[in-house]
Amino acid sequence: MSDITNTEEDGRDERHKARMVRKKEVVDAKIASAQAERGVIVITTGNGKGKSSSGFGMVVRAMGHGMRTGVVQFIKGAIPSGEEMFLQRFPDQCAFHVMGEGYTWETQDRARDVAKAEAAWEVARQMLRDPSIGLVLFDELNIALKLHYLDVDTVIADLRARPAMQHVVITGRGAPPALVEAADTVTDMTPVKHAFQQGIKAQRGVEM
Amino acid sequence: MSDITNTEEDGRDERHKARMVRKKEVVDAKIASAQAERGVIVITTGNGKGKSSSGFGMVVRAMGHGMRTGVVQFIKGAIPSGEEMFLQRFPDQCAFHVMGEGYTWETQDRARDVAKAEAAWEVARQMLRDPSIGLVLFDELNIALKLHYLDVDTVIADLRARPAMQHVVITGRGAPPALVEAADTVTDMTPVKHAFQQGIKAQRGVEM
Repeated sequence: MSDITNTEEDGRDERHKARMVRKKEVVDAKIASAQAERGVIVITTGNGKGKSSSGFGMVVRAMGHGMRTGVVQFIKGAIPSGEEMFLQRFPDQCAFHVMGEGYTWETQDRARDVAKAEAAWEVARQMLRDPSIGLVLFDELNIALKLHYLDVDTVIADLRARPAMQHVVITGRGAPPALVEAADTVTDMTPVKHAFQQGIKAQRGVEM
Repeated sequence: MSDITNTEEDGRDERHKARMVRKKEVVDAKIASAQAERGVIVITTGNGKGKSSSGFGMVVRAMGHGMRTGVVQFIKGAIPSGEEMFLQRFPDQCAFHVMGEGYTWETQDRARDVAKAEAAWEVARQMLRDPSIGLVLFDELNIALKLHYLDVDTVIADLRARPAMQHVVITGRGAPPALVEAADTVTDMTPVKHAFQQGIKAQRGVEM
């Protein structure tokens, strides 16, 4: 009985090993063919949770490698967020600018929203001209573009003129097609379920 | 001519304002009805980029609120990541454990992978019994479950027995259906495009 089990176990281990050897060949070949190094544009969009937190995770990852980073928050900002409170502890490694005044349905003033977005883009543009900044995060920029607070062609032209090795992460629902076209990596965060729908309040550390 | 333009502008601003007032009512009503406060289980899964970085963003967010956090990395770990190097600067606020030995197609040894996953879950279980930890991240746990290195029912039972206010974030492709069922918030990171497909190497600060 235990012999049969051992033989089955051995067979499973061998099949696993053979499968993993083949997988390693495929992965290694892919890695060998991907050799270009340059700054990339990463977009996280869609209606699901995780767009901004993914961007902040990349900021922290870059900081772990000793890179200087920049953050501009375009829409949020009425309440200081956990990531803002945390990252503002490191002014030498992270330039953090909160330019928004809460969501636009809180302000209800389009002209003011446009002026704020333009001022935020001016700060962003300075970062895009600074080769000492290795990674920038433009949080909720997609929303400012979707609401036509900013001109997408101007934004793309400024992105294209940035230092060759600088990475840019752009978050928010409704990334415009022209920006998706200009980006290197785009992920759609698709909601499967959300605690909020089950009557659970937005909580510190998770949503804010 | 400029009068017409002004009138159009005014009309657009008014319509925008009316739309935002309605939107605010809807959002405020939703917020009012979502009043439960308790620890949630958040899962990020799917084939797109941003699963782990979203988890690390939530860790940083929680740390910004002064919460203590815990991280267990189940599969990665052959190369120290930027997030590991960064978060290990804060041992009082983040208990960081790297239990994996690189991806499983690198190790090619199932019995060893199972033993490593079980040791990692033992560390995770200790965190799930510690009410002083406000948020835990189990990075790539989904992969360990998908490969049957760990028993999903045991994992769910340990999750259910955790302190009432503790949040759990679980990342990785292929979240098992039973875990999705047990979770509060689930996002599928759906790839739209990836720099890697265009011959661009995985780079510091973005992918590692």
